[in-house]
Amino acid sequence: MTDLTPVLKQADDGLSASLERLFELVRIPSISTDPAYKADCRKAGEWLVAALSELGFDARLDDTPGHPMVLAKDLSAGEATPHVLFYGHYDVQPVDPLALWEAPPFEPALKELAPGKTVITGRGTSDDKGQLMTFIEACRALKAVHGRLPCRVTILFEGEEESGSPSLKPYLEAHAQELKADYALVCDTSMWNAETPAIAAALRGLVGEEVTIEAADRDLHSGMFGGAAANPIHVLATILAGLHDETGRVTLPGFYDGVEETPSQIKASWETLGETSEKFLGEVGLSVPAGEQGRSILELVWARPTAEVNGITGGYTGDGFKTVIAARASAKVSFRLVGAQDPQAIRAAFRAYVEARLPADCKAHFHEHGASPAIQLPYDSPLLQSARTALSDEWPKPAVIIGMGGSIPIVGDFQRMLGMDSLLVGFGLSDDRIHSPNEKYALTSFHKGIRSWIRILDAIGA
Amino acid sequence: MTDLTPVLKQADDGLSASLERLFELVRIPSISTDPAYKADCRKAGEWLVAALSELGFDARLDDTPGHPMVLAKDLSAGEATPHVLFYGHYDVQPVDPLALWEAPPFEPALKELAPGKTVITGRGTSDDKGQLMTFIEACRALKAVHGRLPCRVTILFEGEEESGSPSLKPYLEAHAQELKADYALVCDTSMWNAETPAIAAALRGLVGEEVTIEAADRDLHSGMFGGAAANPIHVLATILAGLHDETGRVTLPGFYDGVEETPSQIKASWETLGETSEKFLGEVGLSVPAGEQGRSILELVWARPTAEVNGITGGYTGDGFKTVIAARASAKVSFRLVGAQDPQAIRAAFRAYVEARLPADCKAHFHEHGASPAIQLPYDSPLLQSARTALSDEWPKPAVIIGMGGSIPIVGDFQRMLGMDSLLVGFGLSDDRIHSPNEKYALTSFHKGIRSWIRILDAIGA
Repeated sequence: MTDLTPVLKQADDGLSASLERLFELVRIPSISTDPAYKADCRKAGEWLVAALSELGFDARLDDTPGHPMVLAKDLSAGEATPHVLFYGHYDVQPVDPLALWEAPPFEPALKELAPGKTVITGRGTSDDKGQLMTFIEACRALKAVHGRLPCRVTILFEGEEESGSPSLKPYLEAHAQELKADYALVCDTSMWNAETPAIAAALRGLVGEEVTIEAADRDLHSGMFGGAAANPIHVLATILAGLHDETGRVTLPGFYDGVEETPSQIKASWETLGETSEKFLGEVGLSVPAGEQGRSILELVWARPTAEVNGITGGYTGDGFKTVIAARASAKVSFRLVGAQDPQAIRAAFRAYVEARLPADCKAHFHEHGASPAIQLPYDSPLLQSARTALSDEWPKPAVIIGMGGSIPIVGDFQRMLGMDSLLVGFGLSDDRIHSPNEKYALTSFHKGIRSWIRILDAIGA
Repeated sequence: MTDLTPVLKQADDGLSASLERLFELVRIPSISTDPAYKADCRKAGEWLVAALSELGFDARLDDTPGHPMVLAKDLSAGEATPHVLFYGHYDVQPVDPLALWEAPPFEPALKELAPGKTVITGRGTSDDKGQLMTFIEACRALKAVHGRLPCRVTILFEGEEESGSPSLKPYLEAHAQELKADYALVCDTSMWNAETPAIAAALRGLVGEEVTIEAADRDLHSGMFGGAAANPIHVLATILAGLHDETGRVTLPGFYDGVEETPSQIKASWETLGETSEKFLGEVGLSVPAGEQGRSILELVWARPTAEVNGITGGYTGDGFKTVIAARASAKVSFRLVGAQDPQAIRAAFRAYVEARLPADCKAHFHEHGASPAIQLPYDSPLLQSARTALSDEWPKPAVIIGMGGSIPIVGDFQRMLGMDSLLVGFGLSDDRIHSPNEKYALTSFHKGIRSWIRILDAIGA
């Protein structure tokens, strides 16, 4: 740990120049999903290669079947220091409907929403150009003052994150040796609120499954066969209804194997956030948690596994009425996983559960829709603790270690393909309107984001 | 009861002429659903008016917004005799795919399928021209021998039965006084088998209901909200799964009010038919009755009420997978009714059952899809008993009193609008291929059908 005062001052003094560089990048309309912007995507990648080269990184643009990858390395801190892989993406979402934008999306500007509340407006200012630039500008300040970074840094910027990342896995596989580091830093997430930084340490995994129940070999008339023929919708409804007990727990045998209780100090820190069911659910017209009883709302969505039916269909579903007994009915079911739950074991448990409940004459068919285990950075990991301290030093309120209800594919890829844990730190805010018209990034997020990375990199190198 | 020998002989001797008249009627392509055949429908109606007038009926063609009605009366038997309303329809189904017909559909012919098994081929030979002609030719024989009918007869032939009968209810309403009789004879059904005539005395009623469960005010991401937000598909599945207990009985309070046990002699007569679950269900790929335990297969479909889900939909049902928690899910549910079950009471019981099971934050919306009570001719009615005797005298095996799983709208209309019970007697066979290419009617059905009506009318008039 060094005296960071001069580096932080350097960042403060350079803020206008940092902003100007961000504006340059935002002006490039790198919409990855639209072929019309293919050249612009490349241009954004080239801009980043140039910016990183200027900072002393060994930077290059790697072609892929889609948009190119930016790969940059500065290992001058030496073998004795930790090695981090920083990930971000330079592509952005489309801008339609354009008419809803208050200013042109690719003409970034500062806008004072209220005294002391200034934002940077434009497509990509938050997702993810503004976020990745906090890291580059942190490196710039560190290099300007100390001439070098406090640890070894590899940077990977992707250009296809908003269009499904088709080239990412092949690229990770082909460049595994170059990309492998001690852990990854991923900057594509949000703060808890404008005063409270957040580190995502747990991401739920996912098992997707489709089940089809079949009975008769054709659709039947319910007048002729009703009361005699097996009705696949009844069978399916009964099976799905039995997935949860009356306390909201999932009934599959072995489902909770590998699920650990969240440490009490983590749960206590979540309590301090003041999130309530009413607030969390109120935004979507609900009020009462429907899952496991006796768990806080944040525990339910961050730290507990679930079984959810995502779709169901069978029989006649058009307008009016048809007195049919369907030949089949099907449902899409997903399981959110936490801790060490084994996706394949859960898929097998679900299938066995269904098979055991099939009445005479009914058959079940299953179709797999992907599986990924949960990601869990140990709560006592030194990386997590030092990042937490660094962020808490920078922001008005202490950093909170949170979970995320959904998966982030890159984090799973890093873990599975490169054996790396990821630290997810980002400075977005929930009202940044990413993917929507009038995207913005708080000036505070940008400025204190740069200062945050200075502190985190310093802590990592210490 | 008179000596029927001369009348039956008259019918036998006149069979060729009767057949020729049926052929004339079949040659008119009275396809009611296709506007191209509008004039032919009228022509079929006119042909019937002429035929009935020739027999001494007071017959006329009544225009409707669609195809005309044939109304004919012969009340010469006098006020002291019972008055019956005979119903049939002169319109037929379309004939496509024409390529599958072995002979032109409107060129009727006799065809010997096997020694002693001759059929009449052509569209409408069974459904319903052949059937209604059995009654006309019975009247012809009775009149030829006795100069009059044994009871008062009103005849109604509809021309829109195969296209939804849009004009029927307004016509019944407008002509209620003219149509009202002691009871109706409906000839549009089948025998149990080629040797065993059948009288349908019970038709199940129907209540149609659609229920939609709503939770959040929008579709939710199951990563963000899974485990916290109410899932309407879960709620709906649980509600539907609870509609039956483990013995297959419907759980709605009061559901079985008005349901009486089938008399044991009726059940015993059903036993003699030799129908088994394996045979009944085997034709559609099933084998084990799924309804109430401890009931025979025929009792289940003829004499027991049911609750069936006819359709269900919610969430994502396309290809692939979407981790959504739907804002709503809905199901179409129907109840088949027997005996004196009250459709409105059952609808109310279902709605109350759903409302009582709604968890917090969930709402239910209901949409009504029609209601009709069951039709039940009392098993001890003299009409039923005398028709049964008449049929048993004619055919190799005794007539069986059966139920029908589905409703026949005309029967409900006669009951509700004209206060008349219906006796359903028909001579179709299950392999008549009605509505399909190569429709046929057994020559035996036609010949013994005529003789059957002679016996029934005589019994009614006795």
